[in-house]
Amino acid sequence: MSNKIQIFDTTLRDGEQVPGCQLKTEEKIVIARELEALGVDVIEAGFPISSPGDFLSVVELSKNLKEPVVCALTRSKKEDIDVAAEALNHAKRGRIHTGIGSSDVHIQHKFKSTREQVLEQAAWAVSYAKTKGYEVEFYAEDAGRADLEFLAKMIEAVIAAGADVVNIPDTTGYCLPELYGKRIKYLVENVKDIDKAIISVHCHNDLGMATANTVSGLINGARQAEVTMNGIGERAGNTSLEEVAMILETHKDLGLSTNIKSDKIYALSKLVSGMMRMPVQANKAIVGANAFAHSSGIHQDGFLKHAENYEIISPETVGVPSSSIVLTARSGRAALKHRMDLLGYHFEGEDLNTVYENFLMVADEKKMVQDEDLVVLAANMPVLER
Amino acid sequence: MSNKIQIFDTTLRDGEQVPGCQLKTEEKIVIARELEALGVDVIEAGFPISSPGDFLSVVELSKNLKEPVVCALTRSKKEDIDVAAEALNHAKRGRIHTGIGSSDVHIQHKFKSTREQVLEQAAWAVSYAKTKGYEVEFYAEDAGRADLEFLAKMIEAVIAAGADVVNIPDTTGYCLPELYGKRIKYLVENVKDIDKAIISVHCHNDLGMATANTVSGLINGARQAEVTMNGIGERAGNTSLEEVAMILETHKDLGLSTNIKSDKIYALSKLVSGMMRMPVQANKAIVGANAFAHSSGIHQDGFLKHAENYEIISPETVGVPSSSIVLTARSGRAALKHRMDLLGYHFEGEDLNTVYENFLMVADEKKMVQDEDLVVLAANMPVLER
Repeated sequence: MSNKIQIFDTTLRDGEQVPGCQLKTEEKIVIARELEALGVDVIEAGFPISSPGDFLSVVELSKNLKEPVVCALTRSKKEDIDVAAEALNHAKRGRIHTGIGSSDVHIQHKFKSTREQVLEQAAWAVSYAKTKGYEVEFYAEDAGRADLEFLAKMIEAVIAAGADVVNIPDTTGYCLPELYGKRIKYLVENVKDIDKAIISVHCHNDLGMATANTVSGLINGARQAEVTMNGIGERAGNTSLEEVAMILETHKDLGLSTNIKSDKIYALSKLVSGMMRMPVQANKAIVGANAFAHSSGIHQDGFLKHAENYEIISPETVGVPSSSIVLTARSGRAALKHRMDLLGYHFEGEDLNTVYENFLMVADEKKMVQDEDLVVLAANMPVLER
Repeated sequence: MSNKIQIFDTTLRDGEQVPGCQLKTEEKIVIARELEALGVDVIEAGFPISSPGDFLSVVELSKNLKEPVVCALTRSKKEDIDVAAEALNHAKRGRIHTGIGSSDVHIQHKFKSTREQVLEQAAWAVSYAKTKGYEVEFYAEDAGRADLEFLAKMIEAVIAAGADVVNIPDTTGYCLPELYGKRIKYLVENVKDIDKAIISVHCHNDLGMATANTVSGLINGARQAEVTMNGIGERAGNTSLEEVAMILETHKDLGLSTNIKSDKIYALSKLVSGMMRMPVQANKAIVGANAFAHSSGIHQDGFLKHAENYEIISPETVGVPSSSIVLTARSGRAALKHRMDLLGYHFEGEDLNTVYENFLMVADEKKMVQDEDLVVLAANMPVLER
């Protein structure tokens, strides 16, 4: 089995369907080109039958992208597949992403159907999509809660029908990493001809575990990860592209790699957040404003002695200019001395203690201490008169 | 072993040390009282030796809290422990949280010390803290990257010295869930008298896996989780209280429970976010603005048929008034019909198709469609004249 993980980006489909995130086609082209430069392997460009705007986006992205596979979403319906195939007409490499619910709750309450009928529909949709001449990916919606034996049967049927990729989504974000990994492993071990298709993982973040579930799926045999920039997406969002890419980069022991050029991550995160009007919280992993900021005294001191004490990724790796040290009441002498030195004021011993005590009074009052405050503090120190 | 998980909240210590998040003592009292009402078991109130403001906060929280244990952070130094003990003087139940680095990178590059010296210092700090008459928790900083055999030795030594709780932090957010769980399991199986102390998990979110690591630790024998509201904290933050509480609530199969009154989660999330000036991103699990919002047509249709199709937690459980349906170009006929029905306009069959086509044109243009737009759409339909 290859150790290369395909990155399937759905920022422009699962991400774009979020309230307030809708983009114009021209904006989608800008983001898609940056995703291409980032090195993603597949770009899900839209759900063509859902609206004329979505149809147009798939057409335009198909025309504008050179390297990545362009993917169009459908339900397991003839008209959806027809419209998607038409939208993909100009794609260098197109993919139809069709599927149906696989859990009993979806089968009974959403489709008012039976396992047998759904299985038949799934295989039919894949066969029909294959007649269009594109790659075909099948999604087993709500696979995270599906009966595992039935899920295996369904995946076997769609592979027999010609599916190139089989997507095992945890649609509601229900799974725990161990459980999700075991599902993937079960499919690897029990589905006939599983090696004829790539297993894809698509996780949602309703319980905050999308990333961990995705990685668990990859460890257990999946070779495609469906992700979005900044983890945007329906409800609590999808798996974050930047987290998965940097986990595989940091944990070389897993022996898995991607084509992502990590130093482009931060700029693209900013672009997506700005265009989609979806602010990224300061404490977001990898791309948050504070992701590389050290503020407590213990951490600042340790970081200044040796960055690796508190950083497992150097910020430059993901395109962030540098780690920052923010001075607050929790900052220690080492951080104050470091900042003062940069400003040209050199304190040692008792003088450092005195300026530090004065600093703490300012910090307790002002919360964040700026360089101009430090200049005032330094100017008020008797040591300068000596 | 008990199946009750102690929730140790460090919003006011590890959370509050974040750039820009600093609170006045009065504000800390307000949040601490709400944390008490939420049902947390331990509140880390500050790091008394770090600044006069922090000392005062620990004093005031000690006076104001009735139920939770009040905890004060220290390094493994005599003066830190003395000052913490003094600050906790009024606590009904106080705890000193002392510790030292346990990984070789911290031992060599932060403490410029040796394993032997650090081990001795750790045991000494716990013995000394015990003389103050409070509960003592020991943290083995950077335990996520520590040599496992050495970590076990250190934990054994501090338990022998009297530690009531042993905290195994993944300080840099490095671990994968399986790896972190195995570390906890190793300690459970290899540390003499491990049952005399409670194992605590304290995870950081640098790779987006703090929550999954925490849960993996609990599954493997830890019985205290160190968390913050909204996952705030140094760099990419700490484990989110709301995620851990709702995972244990949703996955009853784990057989673990907390004292958290989940219907108070949302209000407290808002309070912390507002007071600390730390916006929560819309796609944050459990407490984000979109956490219970359904926007795609497929999801809206499925949700309206049966909420469980797309919701594993009902929003009321965490104090969110109700799930919302947001109309965009991705919304389907079912959602439009539902909303139109609520507004008093009833469309069926061909009429529904027509109003839906008109709706899509408005939605492609306006991104989010409001009720007033729907009223205009309905008014322009010939069906109303019949």
